[in-house]
Amino acid sequence: MKIVVDGMGGDNAPNSTVEGIVSAIKEFNVDIIVTGDKEILEKNFSKYDFDRSKLEIIHTSEVIMNEDKPVKAIRGKKDSSMVVALNLVKEGKADAIVSAGNTGALLAGGLFVLGRIEGIDRPALCSYMPTKKGMSILLDAGANSDCKPRNLVEFGFMGSIYANKVLDIDNPKVAIVNVGSEEGKGNDLTKKSYEILKGSQINFIGNVEARDIPYGYTDVILCDGFTGNVILKLTEGVAMSIFSMLKETFLSSFKTKIGAALLKNDLVRMKSSLDYAEYGGAPLLGVNGGLIKAHGSSNGKAIKNAIKQAIRFVDGNVLSEIKSKIDIIGADCIE
Amino acid sequence: MKIVVDGMGGDNAPNSTVEGIVSAIKEFNVDIIVTGDKEILEKNFSKYDFDRSKLEIIHTSEVIMNEDKPVKAIRGKKDSSMVVALNLVKEGKADAIVSAGNTGALLAGGLFVLGRIEGIDRPALCSYMPTKKGMSILLDAGANSDCKPRNLVEFGFMGSIYANKVLDIDNPKVAIVNVGSEEGKGNDLTKKSYEILKGSQINFIGNVEARDIPYGYTDVILCDGFTGNVILKLTEGVAMSIFSMLKETFLSSFKTKIGAALLKNDLVRMKSSLDYAEYGGAPLLGVNGGLIKAHGSSNGKAIKNAIKQAIRFVDGNVLSEIKSKIDIIGADCIE
Repeated sequence: MKIVVDGMGGDNAPNSTVEGIVSAIKEFNVDIIVTGDKEILEKNFSKYDFDRSKLEIIHTSEVIMNEDKPVKAIRGKKDSSMVVALNLVKEGKADAIVSAGNTGALLAGGLFVLGRIEGIDRPALCSYMPTKKGMSILLDAGANSDCKPRNLVEFGFMGSIYANKVLDIDNPKVAIVNVGSEEGKGNDLTKKSYEILKGSQINFIGNVEARDIPYGYTDVILCDGFTGNVILKLTEGVAMSIFSMLKETFLSSFKTKIGAALLKNDLVRMKSSLDYAEYGGAPLLGVNGGLIKAHGSSNGKAIKNAIKQAIRFVDGNVLSEIKSKIDIIGADCIE
Repeated sequence: MKIVVDGMGGDNAPNSTVEGIVSAIKEFNVDIIVTGDKEILEKNFSKYDFDRSKLEIIHTSEVIMNEDKPVKAIRGKKDSSMVVALNLVKEGKADAIVSAGNTGALLAGGLFVLGRIEGIDRPALCSYMPTKKGMSILLDAGANSDCKPRNLVEFGFMGSIYANKVLDIDNPKVAIVNVGSEEGKGNDLTKKSYEILKGSQINFIGNVEARDIPYGYTDVILCDGFTGNVILKLTEGVAMSIFSMLKETFLSSFKTKIGAALLKNDLVRMKSSLDYAEYGGAPLLGVNGGLIKAHGSSNGKAIKNAIKQAIRFVDGNVLSEIKSKIDIIGADCIE
């Protein structure tokens, strides 16, 4: 197995990508290809002691920046670290790509370079949601702002397969985010998707209200990409604003400072359970290759964990499992 | 001014409604009409010492239950505490209604009994969002699952007027919830609404990402009712799950118990800033009368604060302000 890492993608690249790659080689004994400016990368890798035979550096002369227009960047910057990495997956020289670069460009690159799996209408970004019970996955996390019922059904199948093969969940529970738990609630999209999903072959348990998402009763959470983006960002915003209020409370008096000191280690542990760096990135499901989008502000640990996700994606044969279910999805979607 | 309270509406009614009414009469010296079972209400009010000349009880024989179908309940239960209260507003015998009853029925009652303000396509439920900086309002909070751009423009005008007249905010800042802050981001609805709002007469500041909502940079937050419902319930779910994790952390050892004891008062104060009972209910803007939907699980304090909101709604002339802007909204919405 070979994983290719976009060495220049991300706010902290290449420091973060180099650190993550070295950790991944040491921990998982995986073969890595990295794309990027060879001179800069060599200099960074030279700081670490690891098995260099597991690493191949492919020189690229361009970098896709965060402010670049996605489609234009993918079409125009042919020798960028991202496009070259995507092509390595397309040509079968690598099994999956990890990138913390421009999200829009990576999604566009997934579509244009890797292409969709035949029979899948819309690939979806599949994000991890930390919950009180562990981990749920949510899709679509932002690849498709407007969705049709067919798309939510595809997301349900792909998410089910991913949860089973990568997260080892037996018969994952799948639900639609909705404004009420009863059938018949919601907007046009959720009502029609419910109708199809309840007769499908996945373990569809109905609707989940947003207030129940953090409790983790559901393994796979389905929604359009607009709602998914709102859910992810709001969860982050509410959690961070509460932690910042807590911090202000803790610093407000001598008494609270002592209280906070006694709690510190336990609170740090609690906060880290909500930290994206612990679980890596978000796979783009439905494209013809393994693609893991790491958070733009990934540090070395987040990159290492995204590489781990890529390994599990390949080991779990997620791609061929999705392809083997295309006929079933198609039949379920005939309205 | 007279406010009518649906005496039997809500999970804790009539205890909560009676307690809230008594507090409101004492604190605000307001005239209250209450609808409901006269015998039960009299018995409850007899426990309190207050100025009875400020209270009128109107007997009703039916109650709309939470499990009742909204439209059927409004049309069928003509002598329910909710429908009778709505009719009092319609007939001008009361200036506004407060109800903690069945939300769907109250929204349907707003449309069928009070009717829409002429020129408004869709009334919106306007919810308070506690933030780090104080209070934002969000509309639509769930009255309209599917919206057109015109609706978001109306919500923007009505929310602006409400924030100005009731929350005393000068030139309120209005933004659309979106997946990115730049123009051109989002789904069909947000893109088209942005186009219209940027040329409108309200203080439109562009898009707000969900992660920034809890920080309170925006006074009026616009979205369709599906997204609004997700935002409100998710904010509640994330906050509650963090507080429940905090509690577990606090109880986990002797050391953390001492720490928690030192912090207790400050944490209770912080948690109460997120408590809906502090600010009452959500007005339904765009119907031809004052209507405040109180939370279903309102206690006496929440009912009292919902009555306060109703008083401020009437004092602020919100209704006539909205009517005076109809021509401007209409002109802005010509595409």
